[in-house]
Amino acid sequence: MTKKPKWVVEKERGKRAAAAETVWLFGLHAVRDALENPARTRLRLVVTKNAADKLADAIAASGMEPELADPRKFPAPIDPGSVHQGAALEVKALDWGPVAEVCLGDGDSAPLVVLLDRVSDPHNVGAILRSAEVFGARAVIGMRHHAAPETGALAKTASGALERQPYLRVTNLADAMRELKDMGFTLIGLAGEAEADLASTIAPLKGRAIALVLGAEGPGLREKTRETCDHLAKIPFASDFGSLNVSNAAAVALYAARN
Amino acid sequence: MTKKPKWVVEKERGKRAAAAETVWLFGLHAVRDALENPARTRLRLVVTKNAADKLADAIAASGMEPELADPRKFPAPIDPGSVHQGAALEVKALDWGPVAEVCLGDGDSAPLVVLLDRVSDPHNVGAILRSAEVFGARAVIGMRHHAAPETGALAKTASGALERQPYLRVTNLADAMRELKDMGFTLIGLAGEAEADLASTIAPLKGRAIALVLGAEGPGLREKTRETCDHLAKIPFASDFGSLNVSNAAAVALYAARN
Repeated sequence: MTKKPKWVVEKERGKRAAAAETVWLFGLHAVRDALENPARTRLRLVVTKNAADKLADAIAASGMEPELADPRKFPAPIDPGSVHQGAALEVKALDWGPVAEVCLGDGDSAPLVVLLDRVSDPHNVGAILRSAEVFGARAVIGMRHHAAPETGALAKTASGALERQPYLRVTNLADAMRELKDMGFTLIGLAGEAEADLASTIAPLKGRAIALVLGAEGPGLREKTRETCDHLAKIPFASDFGSLNVSNAAAVALYAARN
Repeated sequence: MTKKPKWVVEKERGKRAAAAETVWLFGLHAVRDALENPARTRLRLVVTKNAADKLADAIAASGMEPELADPRKFPAPIDPGSVHQGAALEVKALDWGPVAEVCLGDGDSAPLVVLLDRVSDPHNVGAILRSAEVFGARAVIGMRHHAAPETGALAKTASGALERQPYLRVTNLADAMRELKDMGFTLIGLAGEAEADLASTIAPLKGRAIALVLGAEGPGLREKTRETCDHLAKIPFASDFGSLNVSNAAAVALYAARN
């Protein structure tokens, strides 16, 4: 038997680690949504008596055996400041499948995708998942590292969208961008210093597959990301001051792409 | 000397209470912005040695005498979880003046205003102030009660916009709406169940003064607010699921009104 090359061993180790990664979701809404999602791998459910009553239907349907907890000594390992409402659920991150499959069109409408270049604040990513779902984006694609992991805080801000809106995390964003390009997507990077405005950049692309690329507040898009875009465009501002929060910029860009 | 009528006494008492209301801003950015704002009434500045060095220019320009604090026992009365970065500043809420003056056009562009019906989350209001500034809105108008007060958390999310973007709080929202109507504003209420979509509602109003009215997530616009609007419009969604976060809905509506 030949020994596996080192890179194969490392790749397999990474895959095993990712498969073992679990997340504690918390709050009545997030826990209910995850209990009702057949695609979720659920591990432990910790609830107070009060929360168990409120979630009774969802718990029964999930077939899980809840661990009843004293509200004063809530045993789930979540941040002390988290508003858990007496409910916490340990789950595995959802596996949405590969970029090429998830971002395929369904023939009904032109596919729309959001790429996030090092956007790491879970509240922003949660709000972006919510807007992406609302405007019918196929997927939000972030980075495996330097991105917001699927956490309880993200799930809470996403307000249910985490269970329904594909959120993929890739090792190399430029590779994913080139893959989308090969599939026929036009990549539009949002950049404040761009000459073109978003509406006139999008207008001639009506009916085409579009990927919107957003960077973190402050640094913006990295050089490599910027170069891999087909167009750079700005959201035109009336004021010389201030800048949009990244989740607000994403909502505006998704709206512009859909109108 | 005749005795003042009861309502006059009460009104004066309310004014005195409002004038006495102070807010603790915190964080290097928020404190610097408030130190540099000539319109701010500043009361106390509490800083660590480290923060005092970073803010040296702004402190010198403000003429304030900072109280140096031990970072391990930071004495400003702010929430324990607040990321104050060693700087806290007690200020009075900004007085932007009456609705009619603040919302007047400047002749350059059609005035745009945002009204918030019981939107009370400070992070949402902070993000809305930021977007309002970016899209050149004259003012954001909330309610005196049932609204997000000008707090440190709001200032931090607003990322400087609190110092520059007029944020008025009125006792009666419907009265303010009628006042804007008399000034020539067309009032558009955002409502998910509206028949008309936002873009086609706004299109015939090009060049006109517009006020966008948003309600809290969940309850939406109150009956009275809804009735006082000239139009109700929805942001068209591709998906049947989910809803936009209120600050994202505001950003989309401001963008639509400006384009």
